[in-house]
Amino acid sequence: MNVTGIVVEYNPFHNGHLYHINESKRVTGADVIVAVMSGNFLQRGEPAVADKWSRAAVALKHGADIVFELPTVYATQNAQTFAFGAVSLLDQLQCVHSLCFGSESGSIQELQSVSSILADEPEEFKGYLQKFLSAGLSYPKAMHEALAMIGIPLYQRNSTAQPNNTLGLMYLLALHKLKSSITPVTIQRIAAEYHQETITSDSIASATAIRKLANTGSSEQIKEYVPDAITALFSNTYRTMLHWDHFQDLLFYKIYSMNIEELRDIIDVDEGMEYRLKKIVGNANSVNELIEMLKVKRFTWTRIQRMLVHILLDMKKSKLASLQVTPYARILGFTDQGRQLLQIAKKKSAIPLVTKWGKQQLLYADYDHVANRIYSLIEQQHRRDDWSLSQLIHREFSKPPIQQ
Amino acid sequence: MNVTGIVVEYNPFHNGHLYHINESKRVTGADVIVAVMSGNFLQRGEPAVADKWSRAAVALKHGADIVFELPTVYATQNAQTFAFGAVSLLDQLQCVHSLCFGSESGSIQELQSVSSILADEPEEFKGYLQKFLSAGLSYPKAMHEALAMIGIPLYQRNSTAQPNNTLGLMYLLALHKLKSSITPVTIQRIAAEYHQETITSDSIASATAIRKLANTGSSEQIKEYVPDAITALFSNTYRTMLHWDHFQDLLFYKIYSMNIEELRDIIDVDEGMEYRLKKIVGNANSVNELIEMLKVKRFTWTRIQRMLVHILLDMKKSKLASLQVTPYARILGFTDQGRQLLQIAKKKSAIPLVTKWGKQQLLYADYDHVANRIYSLIEQQHRRDDWSLSQLIHREFSKPPIQQ
Repeated sequence: MNVTGIVVEYNPFHNGHLYHINESKRVTGADVIVAVMSGNFLQRGEPAVADKWSRAAVALKHGADIVFELPTVYATQNAQTFAFGAVSLLDQLQCVHSLCFGSESGSIQELQSVSSILADEPEEFKGYLQKFLSAGLSYPKAMHEALAMIGIPLYQRNSTAQPNNTLGLMYLLALHKLKSSITPVTIQRIAAEYHQETITSDSIASATAIRKLANTGSSEQIKEYVPDAITALFSNTYRTMLHWDHFQDLLFYKIYSMNIEELRDIIDVDEGMEYRLKKIVGNANSVNELIEMLKVKRFTWTRIQRMLVHILLDMKKSKLASLQVTPYARILGFTDQGRQLLQIAKKKSAIPLVTKWGKQQLLYADYDHVANRIYSLIEQQHRRDDWSLSQLIHREFSKPPIQQ
Repeated sequence: MNVTGIVVEYNPFHNGHLYHINESKRVTGADVIVAVMSGNFLQRGEPAVADKWSRAAVALKHGADIVFELPTVYATQNAQTFAFGAVSLLDQLQCVHSLCFGSESGSIQELQSVSSILADEPEEFKGYLQKFLSAGLSYPKAMHEALAMIGIPLYQRNSTAQPNNTLGLMYLLALHKLKSSITPVTIQRIAAEYHQETITSDSIASATAIRKLANTGSSEQIKEYVPDAITALFSNTYRTMLHWDHFQDLLFYKIYSMNIEELRDIIDVDEGMEYRLKKIVGNANSVNELIEMLKVKRFTWTRIQRMLVHILLDMKKSKLASLQVTPYARILGFTDQGRQLLQIAKKKSAIPLVTKWGKQQLLYADYDHVANRIYSLIEQQHRRDDWSLSQLIHREFSKPPIQQ
C-alpha cells in the first residue's frame, strides 16, 4: 500500500481541500490518504467552526481514508510545534511513505534548500535569527531577515515570506529532526492564498473567506466553495459557525480569575504580556476588542489568539515546556481502505492507536479531554438538534470511530 | 448618636426587611442604622439577584443609613465565618452600640444561654460536637445533639434547630470572641420563616419565596411583598433576577479545567468531594442537576452551593485557611444621617473606610475585585440598559458611594 500523509484543519472543509486531497493522491500515487487533523481548537488560536467528529466525517466523504486527531497540545501551537506534532504522529505510525502539503512555492527543492539551512543552523544564521527575534520580529520575519544577512538570494528567501511555505519548512524541519523516512512532496496552492479574505475564484476560497462569508452574509453564499456535506452540516446540526465570541465569557472569566504568576506560566504569555492582560481585560467588551488592545508590533493577531487559547485551555509552560513526539494516535474515523491500513499500522506503529479512551494514562490526553468538555459546553448552545451537554461530553468517550 | 448595626443580604429587599429595620430602630432607639451587606455573592452560596449597588440603593431608601459591603471572603461562607466577618467589621468601626438581628426565638437570654456553652466549649460538649461532626452531621445538627448529650433541656436546645437562631448564635459567639462592647438585641421574626417557599402572609414573604415567584410566575406577583424600588429595579434595569443557571457556563468550565489537587484546595471541597465533582460534572446538564447529583447526607444543598461559589471564585484553602478580622470597611452608600456617623467613624475606626479602591493593597480585596468582574460579565447580558461590560467592571473602581 502506498500511503500519503496530510496535515489539515478543515475549518471548514472546502473545495481547495478537495483539490489538495485529489492532487496528493495523483502526485504521490497513494492508495491511502492519512489525515492528521486538529481537534476542536486550531493552530490559528481559534475554536473550530464545528466539532472534530463532524469535520472528520466530511473529510472521509471527500477522499481522506483515515483521520487522526492531532493532540490538543500540538494543535494550538506555533507552526514549529504544530508541524512537529503532526509529522511525528505520522512518523510514529511507521507505515506512511510520503507527506504531501500545499505551498505557495510548489517546489520541494526550493523549500529544502532553505530548510537545510534552518536544520544545520550555522552559527552566523543562528546569531542573526536570535538578534531579529529579540528585536521583536515574528519567527517567519526573523528567519527571512537572517537568511538575507547570510547571503541567501531573494528568490530563495521569498519562500519564507508566505504562510504555507513557512508551514512547509516546518514539516521539512520536523522530518529532519525525526530522521524520518517519509518523503516530503509539495503541491502548489491554487486560486486562494492562505487567510485571503476576498474571493477571487469561482469555486475556491480560503477557509478564512468562507468563515467571513458565513458569519456576515447568508450561508447560502458559501455553497459554491464547499462540498454539500458542509452546507448540510450547518443546515442540520449547527445554527452558526462557532467562533471566539461564543467562548468570550469563559475566556474573560478565566483571565479575571488568574493572577499575574498564573498568567505568566501559560504558554505564549511572554515579555510582560501577563501585565498587559490583567490591565486591559477589564476594558474589553469582546474578544476582538481584547486582541486589538493587546496587539503590539511583535505580537501578531494569530500569536495573540494562540495565547488566548492557551489561557482558555490552561496550557502551562511548567507542564508542557518541551513536547516529546506524539504519544498516541487518536482515530476519529476511517474508510474501508483506511481500515486495511489500520490493520498494518496496529502491528507497525510505535505508539498506541486509540479508538476509544480507556483507563490507560496517556501523556497529554488530559488536554484533549478538557478541550472536548469546554468545546461541548459552548457547542451545545448552538446546535439545532437535541443533544444534551452530557451527551456531547460523553461522545468523546463512548463514540466509536466513524466508519465511512 | 445611638448606632445600631444589622447584617443583611437583601436578596432582594422585601417587606420583612423593612419591618426588621424599623423594629431595630424602635427597640434599640437608634439614630443610625449601619448595615453590613453581602456583595454580589451570598451566604447561601448563590449569586445575588441584582448587583450590590442596586441592592444598597434600595436599602438606603428604606431606613439603612450606611451600607458597608461584607468582603467576599466572608460573605460566601458558613454561618460561623459569615457572622465573624460581619460582626468584626461592625466591631472595628468602634462606634456601633448594638447589633440587632431577627431570630425565631426572639429571646436574647435564651440564645445567650446556649451561646455561652458554645463559647466556653466545655470538654464534654466539645467531644460530642466533634463526634457528631465526624459522623457527618451538619454543624447546627451536631450542635443540637451535643447540647442534648450534656443535658441542656429541649426548650433551650430548640433554639439551635432554626436557621436564624443559628445565625444569631454565631453573632453572639463572634461578639464574645472579639470581646466586643456591642450589645446584641434580637427581634422575633414574623410571618415568614427563613427559606420558607410558600407564602402565608398578605405582605411578608421570605426572599426565597419571592425569588421563586419572580422566576416562575409573573414579576407582577412580587409587588405585594417588596417595596416599589425593587419592582422598579427589575422593570428598569434587569430583565430577570440573576441566579445560578446564568453562571452555569463559567462554573462548569472552571470544574472541567481543574484537576483533583486544585479542587481539593478549594474551601468546602472536603471528604473526597473533589473526586465526586470530577466524576459527576460531565453528567450534569444544569447547576441544579449537578447539586442533586453531588448531594449526600452530610452535605446539604446550601453547603454544596457554597462549595460551588468557592470554586467559581477560586477561594483557596491555602490562601484563606483562617480569616482574620475584616481588614477594611467598603462603603457602598449612605444617607445624610449616615454621613454624620462616617465623620465619627473616620476618626474612631480601627480599619480603613474605603470609599474608592485606591492603590493601597488591602488583604482579601482581590476577591472582591474578582467577584465584581465575574458578576459584571453575566450581569451585562441580563440588563435592560446599555451599560457595557467594561463600564460595569469599572463601576467598582470609579463609582463613588451612593448618597441618598
